[in-house]
Amino acid sequence: MYHWPIVTHRDREHYTMRPEEAWDLLEPHLLPLPPVSVDRRQALGRVLADPLPATVDVPGETVSAMDGYALSGGAEPGESRPVEGTIAAGDPPGAHLASGSAARIMTGAPVPSGADRVVPVELTDGGAERVRIDRPVEVGANIRRRGEVMRRGDELLPRGAQLGAGTLALVATHGHRRLSVHRPPRVAVLTTGDEVVDPDTDPAPGQLRDSHTDFLLAAGRGMGLELEALGIAGDSVDSLEPLIRRGLASDVLLLGGGVSMGEFDLVEHVLADLDCEIVFDHVAIQPGKPLVAARHSGGLVFGLPGNPASVMACFWLFVRPALRRLMGIDDRFWGGALRARLDAELPASKKRDRFLPANVRVSGGELVATPRPPVGSHDLAAYGGGSALVRIPVSSAARPAGESCEILPLGEWPPESTLAG
Amino acid sequence: MYHWPIVTHRDREHYTMRPEEAWDLLEPHLLPLPPVSVDRRQALGRVLADPLPATVDVPGETVSAMDGYALSGGAEPGESRPVEGTIAAGDPPGAHLASGSAARIMTGAPVPSGADRVVPVELTDGGAERVRIDRPVEVGANIRRRGEVMRRGDELLPRGAQLGAGTLALVATHGHRRLSVHRPPRVAVLTTGDEVVDPDTDPAPGQLRDSHTDFLLAAGRGMGLELEALGIAGDSVDSLEPLIRRGLASDVLLLGGGVSMGEFDLVEHVLADLDCEIVFDHVAIQPGKPLVAARHSGGLVFGLPGNPASVMACFWLFVRPALRRLMGIDDRFWGGALRARLDAELPASKKRDRFLPANVRVSGGELVATPRPPVGSHDLAAYGGGSALVRIPVSSAARPAGESCEILPLGEWPPESTLAG
Repeated sequence: MYHWPIVTHRDREHYTMRPEEAWDLLEPHLLPLPPVSVDRRQALGRVLADPLPATVDVPGETVSAMDGYALSGGAEPGESRPVEGTIAAGDPPGAHLASGSAARIMTGAPVPSGADRVVPVELTDGGAERVRIDRPVEVGANIRRRGEVMRRGDELLPRGAQLGAGTLALVATHGHRRLSVHRPPRVAVLTTGDEVVDPDTDPAPGQLRDSHTDFLLAAGRGMGLELEALGIAGDSVDSLEPLIRRGLASDVLLLGGGVSMGEFDLVEHVLADLDCEIVFDHVAIQPGKPLVAARHSGGLVFGLPGNPASVMACFWLFVRPALRRLMGIDDRFWGGALRARLDAELPASKKRDRFLPANVRVSGGELVATPRPPVGSHDLAAYGGGSALVRIPVSSAARPAGESCEILPLGEWPPESTLAG
Repeated sequence: MYHWPIVTHRDREHYTMRPEEAWDLLEPHLLPLPPVSVDRRQALGRVLADPLPATVDVPGETVSAMDGYALSGGAEPGESRPVEGTIAAGDPPGAHLASGSAARIMTGAPVPSGADRVVPVELTDGGAERVRIDRPVEVGANIRRRGEVMRRGDELLPRGAQLGAGTLALVATHGHRRLSVHRPPRVAVLTTGDEVVDPDTDPAPGQLRDSHTDFLLAAGRGMGLELEALGIAGDSVDSLEPLIRRGLASDVLLLGGGVSMGEFDLVEHVLADLDCEIVFDHVAIQPGKPLVAARHSGGLVFGLPGNPASVMACFWLFVRPALRRLMGIDDRFWGGALRARLDAELPASKKRDRFLPANVRVSGGELVATPRPPVGSHDLAAYGGGSALVRIPVSSAARPAGESCEILPLGEWPPESTLAG
């Protein structure tokens, strides 16, 4: 049922593919997850699995668009009219206005039958018993007709709409309490490596604190997902197998670690034994070349190469868009990338697309990127601190400051903005 | 101690100020909140109130950067050496390599004393007993020296750093479990209006479902804040006063509603009685002109004009940057705005800066904005559905498609990307 080419790192050189090719292999496995019903107030960021209908006409009544006076029939400049009363927002509709008279009316208040226009208070003397109309208005002015925006039964939001704060407010006005959205993926995180210890432990000589779990939990939360941390597995089948098996119960298992040849082969063997089928392994990106994507009957596995820089780059480049697809959001490798201006030199690349961390700021409406070239892939301070990735396409010469580049912002907008310490 | 000019809407025309002036009045009241200690895994999006030190050298040992062979002294091309053993990542440091020999070494494994370079496995025959070096490397090659990235006691992150997924991973590798961050603001939300009912209630004729609360809770959550909903107050001092008093116990009280003259004056009177001092009222923006900002000894109040479009625009333009300032993040009115290309006409403006909802997409690295001109400020479908605001500067003529405009993205990146339904 599965094929898992066991190859050495040297053999794999011949298999390395461009990142766009790798994404194309992955995309067919990224259909939106089935619908679930969620409470409206828990639906931020989710995507509608079914269209939502309007349940009321908008506006629900024919109402005034201004504070002013409802008039029955046109008036001459300077004409004075008796004020029959005041209609407030929230008053029930049904009042009637006699021809040639006026009613004080508030914004959003129902226009009485017989009235055919509203003159704003600014164009009158604001009188209480009688009102003088300084400047008349045309028939229909400042009246919002029932249903002029939308009619009950119209499509309020289409299937596939992502629910932001604004759309959730819209949904609230139609009284939809439960919403059918694509189920957010269940994602499990497992770090591997005999040398890796929990970050809240003091490492012995030769040991390293795990950073993958904290990174992935936080990056997932930034997408509105609560990831499950499975802990740290040692470099043995006995340690790996039960934890990987548990992770395969999730829609997506993220394996971080396995930087060295031996560790990685071990993880791949365990995955093969658990009926995982490779989608791609090795991508011509730096960092992150040994990235592996695999699938099984219940979901996906990403093997994120062990150094923190690779885990981060592979997450932003492949895992985030994959998770967004499962949530029903359109995204892809390098999706949403933008042009920016370099304000420092961008180094060259050789055989692979390189991705460097960068600080991005907005200057005069333009994006300005400062690459943060790391000392090496172990330079977590450089990779962890950027607010975007900047791409150096394969076989590129260095580019001087002032030239343009392509960046992928990593979080919310604006991308970078901390008060000076 | 306070002054609260009670003026009618007509008088206020003379007071209306440009939005940048209004922001300048507000900014002095937006100092970052005092530090609190939070668990690292609850710190996403928070801002460090104190610098964080490195607790370990990076790397912690002198380690190999590659899978390969540690050599003691240079080799000639084709030279063969005895392999003394294998050093794995996680092995304790302290091994010694005799001159003229080699040790198999994994990425991240401690370099034995005596070794002065690592030749990658790709440049050898990969032998187990003896290894043939096909292409020699220079002294120091592929060795990461202890502390070359950072030394224990160095500044790991400065005060003012915002904690994203990458920086939290970095923090984890230094074992910082509790972090001193600026306390996130406590924000209360109160909707006002006799005609407004809870969204989960069927409105009677003349009544409207509240959308402000759902909007503000979701928009706050998008910033990593859990806002407190105080409910809906009627248009009477008896109903308003206790709820506003309760809201003033928060750092920021957001009052939504009070669209009509009478309601708004009532809210202002209650605020004045509770020792709130006006910062500004009325701003030359559309929608949102009647926006009020006030302060008291314990915090701030925003009076967001009653129609949903105004509440949304005022939140994105003033409240979000204000809350970000309190969190220690630099932002301001129209902060982070970007240039985009119009792909539909942008209408004109008169006496005020206009802000329209817009859909934004990325095309060839460039931002493309489609304005969504609403039927009116009651057209929540237009205002709620955009992923950015587009600005029409005061006294601007209409601009045709193809020209540039300024947009403020409203959420995460990429700004717009739902799969077609």
